[in-house]
Amino acid sequence: MTAEDTVHRVRHGGREARRRERSHKATGHGRPYITRNIPTYDILSEENLQKIEAAADRILAETGIEFRDDDVALDHWKKAGAKVDGVRVTFEPGMLREILKSAPAEFTQHARNPENSARIGGRNVVFAPAYGSPFVMDLDRGRRFGTLQDFENFIKLAQSSPWFHHSGGTICEPTDVPVNKRHLDMVYSHIRYSDRPFMGSVTAEERSEDSIDMARIVFGRDFVDENCVILGNVNVNSPLVWDGTMTKSLRAYARANQCAVVVPFILGGAMGPVTNAGAIAQSLAETMAGCALTQLERKGAPTVFGTFLSSMSLRSGSPTFGTPEPAIGSMVIGQLCRRLGLPLRCSGNFTTSKLPDAHAMTEGTMSMLAAIHCGANFILHSAGFLDGLLSMSYEKFMLDADLCGALHTYLDGVKIDDNQLAVDAFAEVGPGNHFFGCSHTMANYETAFWDSETADNEPFEKWEAAGQDDAATRANRLWKQHLREYEAPHLDEGVDKALREFVTKKKAAVPDAWY
Amino acid sequence: MTAEDTVHRVRHGGREARRRERSHKATGHGRPYITRNIPTYDILSEENLQKIEAAADRILAETGIEFRDDDVALDHWKKAGAKVDGVRVTFEPGMLREILKSAPAEFTQHARNPENSARIGGRNVVFAPAYGSPFVMDLDRGRRFGTLQDFENFIKLAQSSPWFHHSGGTICEPTDVPVNKRHLDMVYSHIRYSDRPFMGSVTAEERSEDSIDMARIVFGRDFVDENCVILGNVNVNSPLVWDGTMTKSLRAYARANQCAVVVPFILGGAMGPVTNAGAIAQSLAETMAGCALTQLERKGAPTVFGTFLSSMSLRSGSPTFGTPEPAIGSMVIGQLCRRLGLPLRCSGNFTTSKLPDAHAMTEGTMSMLAAIHCGANFILHSAGFLDGLLSMSYEKFMLDADLCGALHTYLDGVKIDDNQLAVDAFAEVGPGNHFFGCSHTMANYETAFWDSETADNEPFEKWEAAGQDDAATRANRLWKQHLREYEAPHLDEGVDKALREFVTKKKAAVPDAWY
Repeated sequence: MTAEDTVHRVRHGGREARRRERSHKATGHGRPYITRNIPTYDILSEENLQKIEAAADRILAETGIEFRDDDVALDHWKKAGAKVDGVRVTFEPGMLREILKSAPAEFTQHARNPENSARIGGRNVVFAPAYGSPFVMDLDRGRRFGTLQDFENFIKLAQSSPWFHHSGGTICEPTDVPVNKRHLDMVYSHIRYSDRPFMGSVTAEERSEDSIDMARIVFGRDFVDENCVILGNVNVNSPLVWDGTMTKSLRAYARANQCAVVVPFILGGAMGPVTNAGAIAQSLAETMAGCALTQLERKGAPTVFGTFLSSMSLRSGSPTFGTPEPAIGSMVIGQLCRRLGLPLRCSGNFTTSKLPDAHAMTEGTMSMLAAIHCGANFILHSAGFLDGLLSMSYEKFMLDADLCGALHTYLDGVKIDDNQLAVDAFAEVGPGNHFFGCSHTMANYETAFWDSETADNEPFEKWEAAGQDDAATRANRLWKQHLREYEAPHLDEGVDKALREFVTKKKAAVPDAWY
Repeated sequence: MTAEDTVHRVRHGGREARRRERSHKATGHGRPYITRNIPTYDILSEENLQKIEAAADRILAETGIEFRDDDVALDHWKKAGAKVDGVRVTFEPGMLREILKSAPAEFTQHARNPENSARIGGRNVVFAPAYGSPFVMDLDRGRRFGTLQDFENFIKLAQSSPWFHHSGGTICEPTDVPVNKRHLDMVYSHIRYSDRPFMGSVTAEERSEDSIDMARIVFGRDFVDENCVILGNVNVNSPLVWDGTMTKSLRAYARANQCAVVVPFILGGAMGPVTNAGAIAQSLAETMAGCALTQLERKGAPTVFGTFLSSMSLRSGSPTFGTPEPAIGSMVIGQLCRRLGLPLRCSGNFTTSKLPDAHAMTEGTMSMLAAIHCGANFILHSAGFLDGLLSMSYEKFMLDADLCGALHTYLDGVKIDDNQLAVDAFAEVGPGNHFFGCSHTMANYETAFWDSETADNEPFEKWEAAGQDDAATRANRLWKQHLREYEAPHLDEGVDKALREFVTKKKAAVPDAWY
């Protein structure tokens, strides 16, 4: 494409849209999830895996975990045979593994558009946007607090892209909405502007229940009782503490037969040891306990085994992201999780960079490839993450979406058959000739190669004449174009009305609170 | 570190130098090569590997390879039992594999500083700078033709970094030196400004021989006859053509018991099929033939099995780099190469980006991680590569060097022992407390985490106050600092004098030629 074409495409979009459609068709547009065609990367030996499991068992048996402000959780543990001393719970080796046997190895999270229902677990991979930033950024306006408008924009950008399978959850904090009412607007926006699976709130038990109630409006109460339609992401307060807010939300999701994603956040040297093996053992212990609690609340409820390892700068105490230690840690966690037979949430597109620059994508790509190789099934934080999760970036979102696209091709691996091996092409072309017009090329070129939307593969001179844009500048044009071209998926009017009434009623019932 | 510290460090370097030394000590400064502590990533089944091998055998037996302008090579093939018809050579299945059995699975490339001698093959990994760009770039002066000054600068930057193990070869073309004399200045510069292993010229048989003769001045004729001290990188003229210039250079290296690195460059859809499996089979066929030819010239000579797969934009015909297909292809090539028992050169830090931006590092990181996972032993193009290999970038070089550093930690994998598992730390710290000052942290923090030289992990506000630099801007400061602080390694005066006399005599012997 020429520089003029680029301008044309940005202005008019028609040609670009056709190209995109062709590309999506070729590379799997509209896949509700990816089924991996490459093996997981198993980094540790059986012997070393057993050593980590033994270390986790020792943490659980000797130090234990505190479950604070949740008497029901403590009761569950007592009944299950754990030793409960005040809020401290210790577990005999093997006990949690036994409880976890009732959790499904994979399950379907239903979307309101059945074509988008995603399979989570097994060989399947689901990409979801980043989660939880208070700030948003773009190249025009810099950093600012996120608003509901930003939140909706990111849902629309994700929905517009064929490279996500999930609308995510708290993509950014809509800080212009009171804290105690945000979840209502967030869940409504996911349902209204996306027809993919999504996540609900976990910041209080009643907000979790509101989120699930809204899902019941969409899917019907009976359906929800039997099928997973919403995820909640609950965090351990590492090291070795589960706060009541989290366990009550975890139990709310499990009670409704919905999926709690259980995630310790371990910043090595702060919330865990500075050594990778120790942080991994701790992560295993904390997640096993959380996932087991879902089964005590409701046997058979879906749950996801999560991990979030991070290193730190030991000069400044700042967290670091996208570094090699957590990438390697992810591979180990993947192996440990598969031995438990649970779906895995791991890694994402992490970075500490404050800009969508070289730093951001070095760390992000290493981190995302770790998620791919370790066998992660649900990859939250696939796109938009900047500044150690404090900011959601519009440009980074587009760059990351493009990487997610490339990873579709990566996960497809290499196909081996006579056509792919081009067995007859060599005789046709012969030594020293080119393959441009040969029959094998003509038969295969449309589906041949991943085609990036943000890379500039043009010759230097064309790129120079077109303004010498860097990738972030191209991404800036692209998100604006995608927002302009966004079309909302159909939503049944009755459902929409019922949802809006629910939100209005709930908002009216309590005064605004900003904490 | 604070913003003021950053300025201080850039200005004075003392604190930074100390930090760097500490960091290098922690993460393996001065290692002459990496011995991987993580497994290779084996992507294909035995059955599918055999299918690719069969496809390569069929290409070799039915279509064959042309060896142009080199009667000696054709004679070698006749004597070895291949069928030679004009310049076309065909090979019975199994014939090349039999010949390749005499090539060493690993070997040492000696450096003039014995501490830097590198082991190539087996579980060892060697990083070398990019190779062959006519242009250089930096943020101050943009793109321009490379000069001998640039060439020397890049050698100095590589030598200054603990993250390379090899000085490389034609890091950029010194276009201010006549083409027929460049190799003399390049080889001299590698020897003068670096004390690591290096590569010689391959652009003509006599230039290869000059390169080897200069190595003989440094190491002694007898030593060179028995040990590898120089590599030459020879390219197949894909598809299925070996030009005489290349085979004569290949034979010159082999004849001297030096190492020819054998590399097809296959741009899918142009020099090979658009399908990955076909390009891989072709690459296998072409490289087997080249590596086997080294053994016919001198049985037992070291050789490296190389590959360079690339995809293309089927819209514009432009080559693309750092895309998922070649990354996946690298893993397959790695498995095929290990079945041949040869050292592997594969992948590098590839991109089509014209700037050291997000685009560059997305592609570069995917591409470098493919090299790491596929088990590559000699990773040429580890640093500096921009614009599809047309430009060597000062800033990208620094960013890539930093990634090479991170990959040292990555390749070290995860260690599992009682200290790494932090078995006693959990009891000491207990639930809800932090690990900052605990005895396990104090005992381990100095060697705990990879510490990037180009990332900015500071809080947003500190980064903002320090000028909001992106990674490329930081890299721009860094290469200037490294050049200022560079100190040449000791070189024996007699050797230096003999090298300079050799260069002067050779240059005087023939008129300048610019082709």
